[in-house]
Amino acid sequence: MPLGISLLEAARKAGAGIQSICGGKARCGKCTVVVRQGSELLSSVSESEFKFLSQAELATGYRLACRALVTRAGSIIINIPMETRIGRHRLLVEGIEVPMELSPIVKKFVVKMPKPTLVDIMPDMERLIEALKGSRETEELHLDYEALKALPHVVREGEWTATVTLWSGREVVCVEAGSTAHRLYGVAVDIGTTKLACYLVDLNTGKILATTSSPNPQIPYGEDVISRITYSSESAQHLAELQGVIVGGINKLISEACEKAGVKSEEVYDMAVVGNTAMHHIFLSLNPKYVSLAPFPAVTGGSLNVKARSLGVRINRGAYVYTMPCVAGFVGADAIADMLATEIHRLNELSMCIDIGTNTEIMLGDERKLMACSCASGPAFEGAHVKHGMRAATGAIERVFIDPETLEVTYRTIEDAKPRGLCGSAIVDVVAEMLKAGVIDRSGKINTKFETARLRVKDNIMPELVIAWSNETEGGDDIVITQRDVREIQLAKAAIYTGASILMNKMRVTAADIKHVFIAGAFGTYVDPRSAKVIGMYPDVPLDRVKFVGNAAGSGARMALTSVKARKLAEEIRAKVEYLELGADPEFEGEFTKALFFPHLELDRFPNVRRMLGL
Amino acid sequence: MPLGISLLEAARKAGAGIQSICGGKARCGKCTVVVRQGSELLSSVSESEFKFLSQAELATGYRLACRALVTRAGSIIINIPMETRIGRHRLLVEGIEVPMELSPIVKKFVVKMPKPTLVDIMPDMERLIEALKGSRETEELHLDYEALKALPHVVREGEWTATVTLWSGREVVCVEAGSTAHRLYGVAVDIGTTKLACYLVDLNTGKILATTSSPNPQIPYGEDVISRITYSSESAQHLAELQGVIVGGINKLISEACEKAGVKSEEVYDMAVVGNTAMHHIFLSLNPKYVSLAPFPAVTGGSLNVKARSLGVRINRGAYVYTMPCVAGFVGADAIADMLATEIHRLNELSMCIDIGTNTEIMLGDERKLMACSCASGPAFEGAHVKHGMRAATGAIERVFIDPETLEVTYRTIEDAKPRGLCGSAIVDVVAEMLKAGVIDRSGKINTKFETARLRVKDNIMPELVIAWSNETEGGDDIVITQRDVREIQLAKAAIYTGASILMNKMRVTAADIKHVFIAGAFGTYVDPRSAKVIGMYPDVPLDRVKFVGNAAGSGARMALTSVKARKLAEEIRAKVEYLELGADPEFEGEFTKALFFPHLELDRFPNVRRMLGL
Repeated sequence: MPLGISLLEAARKAGAGIQSICGGKARCGKCTVVVRQGSELLSSVSESEFKFLSQAELATGYRLACRALVTRAGSIIINIPMETRIGRHRLLVEGIEVPMELSPIVKKFVVKMPKPTLVDIMPDMERLIEALKGSRETEELHLDYEALKALPHVVREGEWTATVTLWSGREVVCVEAGSTAHRLYGVAVDIGTTKLACYLVDLNTGKILATTSSPNPQIPYGEDVISRITYSSESAQHLAELQGVIVGGINKLISEACEKAGVKSEEVYDMAVVGNTAMHHIFLSLNPKYVSLAPFPAVTGGSLNVKARSLGVRINRGAYVYTMPCVAGFVGADAIADMLATEIHRLNELSMCIDIGTNTEIMLGDERKLMACSCASGPAFEGAHVKHGMRAATGAIERVFIDPETLEVTYRTIEDAKPRGLCGSAIVDVVAEMLKAGVIDRSGKINTKFETARLRVKDNIMPELVIAWSNETEGGDDIVITQRDVREIQLAKAAIYTGASILMNKMRVTAADIKHVFIAGAFGTYVDPRSAKVIGMYPDVPLDRVKFVGNAAGSGARMALTSVKARKLAEEIRAKVEYLELGADPEFEGEFTKALFFPHLELDRFPNVRRMLGL
Repeated sequence: MPLGISLLEAARKAGAGIQSICGGKARCGKCTVVVRQGSELLSSVSESEFKFLSQAELATGYRLACRALVTRAGSIIINIPMETRIGRHRLLVEGIEVPMELSPIVKKFVVKMPKPTLVDIMPDMERLIEALKGSRETEELHLDYEALKALPHVVREGEWTATVTLWSGREVVCVEAGSTAHRLYGVAVDIGTTKLACYLVDLNTGKILATTSSPNPQIPYGEDVISRITYSSESAQHLAELQGVIVGGINKLISEACEKAGVKSEEVYDMAVVGNTAMHHIFLSLNPKYVSLAPFPAVTGGSLNVKARSLGVRINRGAYVYTMPCVAGFVGADAIADMLATEIHRLNELSMCIDIGTNTEIMLGDERKLMACSCASGPAFEGAHVKHGMRAATGAIERVFIDPETLEVTYRTIEDAKPRGLCGSAIVDVVAEMLKAGVIDRSGKINTKFETARLRVKDNIMPELVIAWSNETEGGDDIVITQRDVREIQLAKAAIYTGASILMNKMRVTAADIKHVFIAGAFGTYVDPRSAKVIGMYPDVPLDRVKFVGNAAGSGARMALTSVKARKLAEEIRAKVEYLELGADPEFEGEFTKALFFPHLELDRFPNVRRMLGL
């Protein structure tokens, strides 16, 4: 390795992309890496690094890659955090993976039966079950009614060789002619208030074959869960309508995923679904009315297995749909999936998990005790309610840097395409950068006094900052962030932090006690944890304790799809979690008002941000 | 009791109707009674009685009521066999009843739940199950999906008191607001090839509340099972069509029965169904194709519990439909029901059970060994394929006597109404009387040489006997029995006797070994066992060994409806019965040809009939 070059250049030469929005000028602070070995071979920590990194972070090896120069020859190993990486692999479509033993609830068995004769007229079903039992230990077996109806044709078509799909070791959900054991698929579905995600998984290998997603088609009935609950509670027809709409959307995603992977929808033998309590109830045609009325009881909290055909889900006729348990109120199956995926119920260190969405679920605890709450944070971080917000697709701006001196804006887009809008991670970046550059004050007000064309007051009413000029953008219009956008973000982050702080109060812990903060959500790309901390979205903990885990709910759903152990764990988690109804908490109003400030009215709670902002 | 009068008069004075078609002239032999006590107070056995009754019968106390005169004062107790009685109670709508402990598979429990509060937000389902478990021992409970959907409304409507209908101790199939424990109903349905029968039963008492019946609406698709199997095997649409038709007919009967009894169809929480294998398969949408192709395997032989809603049966949304097990070939659930109702699987004496219908099932055996077969006997005994045949309704001729000297015909109709046709019991009577009077010879040929206007040759082709003249009948036309009618009966009885005789050969027994003959079937009234024996319908055994049990299949269905023990017994019977495929038996042709004669080509097999006919 040539001496004198920075880690930024060295990594690029080694083929590993590290992002640097400001072009290696130590201004954006986005090229953070962690030096695991060989720190003694690097230049000493520079002044800019002291600005962007806390003492704790520096102590654990954090450096700015543009400032750490290789001064001596030797072996250097660095860890590039996901949010610092460049390229497609930063797209957070699939979330994290927790290794689990592959043990899907459906298994295939090839059975060979003797052909019936005049001295052996055993009926088809008994013949099949006899042959199936011969090959394995089992107590009582029964056939799904639809599988039974197909049976006489199937066993003869396969000349008395058939493949049985056995659910939970006791129900034959499908019988196919001949040997089809190599084709065993399942889907995991995450029903977000704003977004649906669908994962097609090969249940013989555990591998994801295709991922599809779309906006939740219920959005026209209301963007938030309350409007949808209200609508579906009005009549049985309304509930059926919303259920039909969501199932229609899911069927479309399943069909797209199957087409991508060359799988037939009838080869999908199991499905695992997660979603908040309202989405869970509507998907199952369970009236969600009382979930929104004090004391907010759910219709059911346990996991369910309902026949796909009863729900209108178009997969194999005999297949079950598994829905993960719900905690209570709006803390639903998605929260359990988050905990499953982050494993916070198993850690002996205190952890917080924040699943940011239109409804944000927050979980705090460890292997001994777990608490959870839900906040109505709105869809701002998902790109909705923000003037130029969009989902994380080609052309979405995902990283933003504002030069504090010139107020010049530098950005990076997904696939380096012409910018089309701002995705969630960029929205968080913009607000943090505006705060750092003084474009907004701690109350969120835009200061238009600066001398730059980028800052203007639209129609003499609405202050806004231009992120990308019309000549740079795909659509030919300026991409801006408005005062109203800032207010949306402010409300959203305040809702989230309020939940987090009340949970901390109940558990009698402070930010310093939290050893891990998992941030989940359908951002689509890795949010910059520094930006999120600067705006006060989560408690002020050192950077190395923060992990963005993407769509953890989807990861949890996939775990339940591929492992019966995960389903058992989900029940255990549900039994353990203590639910806190935020709306009923006396602290709520006061905490929320204070949390509206950036990062918070009480700066003592954010010592590192205070230092970074120079307050 | 005045001395000198006959038992016929004495019984009438005592209010007990004994039938006598010939008017007490000892010519019809239909006033048979059994003297249980006081035989020494009666006149000695007359010559006419020796003619109508065998030695064995006389020895067990049989007398003709018109000839047994009361000669001394004292207490006389007589038993009037069902077929000898007059009046409505002779109508065999409901079949026999076997006393069984009342233990339906569905039970109701009233549960009171604590109302949810902010400190007790247990979901509705878990709240219900907790409360239900509190009142009883149980392992695992789950809710039917439809019951779950209704739950949030129901528990609140009943102000946290609800009535749960529990199926098999493990599935909540229905939850109702408040206390409805006193209303628990079920239906038992017998699907005959030609006739449907439906019994609405109060499952709290075991009492039949209403009985409805109708022709099988599948008849337009073919009168015999083979044509219906052929039709439904042609395509999935055809099978669905026939299934829809049968379910439509059943729904109509359920709805009529519910209306009669003031019960709502959603208060029917369980249903038990019997029928031959073809009817069973079509009702369940199981392709019956292979049941009619050698080696004739069924799709399934075991009992099934399928959701009523999956079948289109309109009872409670969460209810199951139980189908009784099938033996094999065409010996189906109805045969198992027959055995259940007659208890031949429990007797230590050899018994035969003949269930006469379009398909006739014959069972022979005892507690050690049981064999069964099925014969295509056609619907003649059910009134079809007989020119003036009809079902047992008001105006149906049910008893016929032909004076052997004058050939004058005397008859009795149901409810003494003007005659409208001949029901099954009259058809059997007519042929037996024609044989006794010499109007037909043993080959079944009508002898038109007699000088009576009643015997004539229609259109110079078809000999016929007038049973009722046009001026006597409701319709204003003569009611006749034709040569073709006699041929139909002949074929039918030959088919039945052939099955019986082959079974006897296989079991290496003779008529003398058979201690009980149970004759079941949808005759609607009690067939005269003497007439049935004269034509050679069943082996020649003494009269006291013959019992007409009516719709025993319906009785068996009701037993399964009201008792889980009966369901267990049905499985035991199924495991025990050995099936004989008649069509594949080398004896069949020879036996059938001989059985075409009245009573049989080999008179040695019918010694009592030979004596009665003076041959």
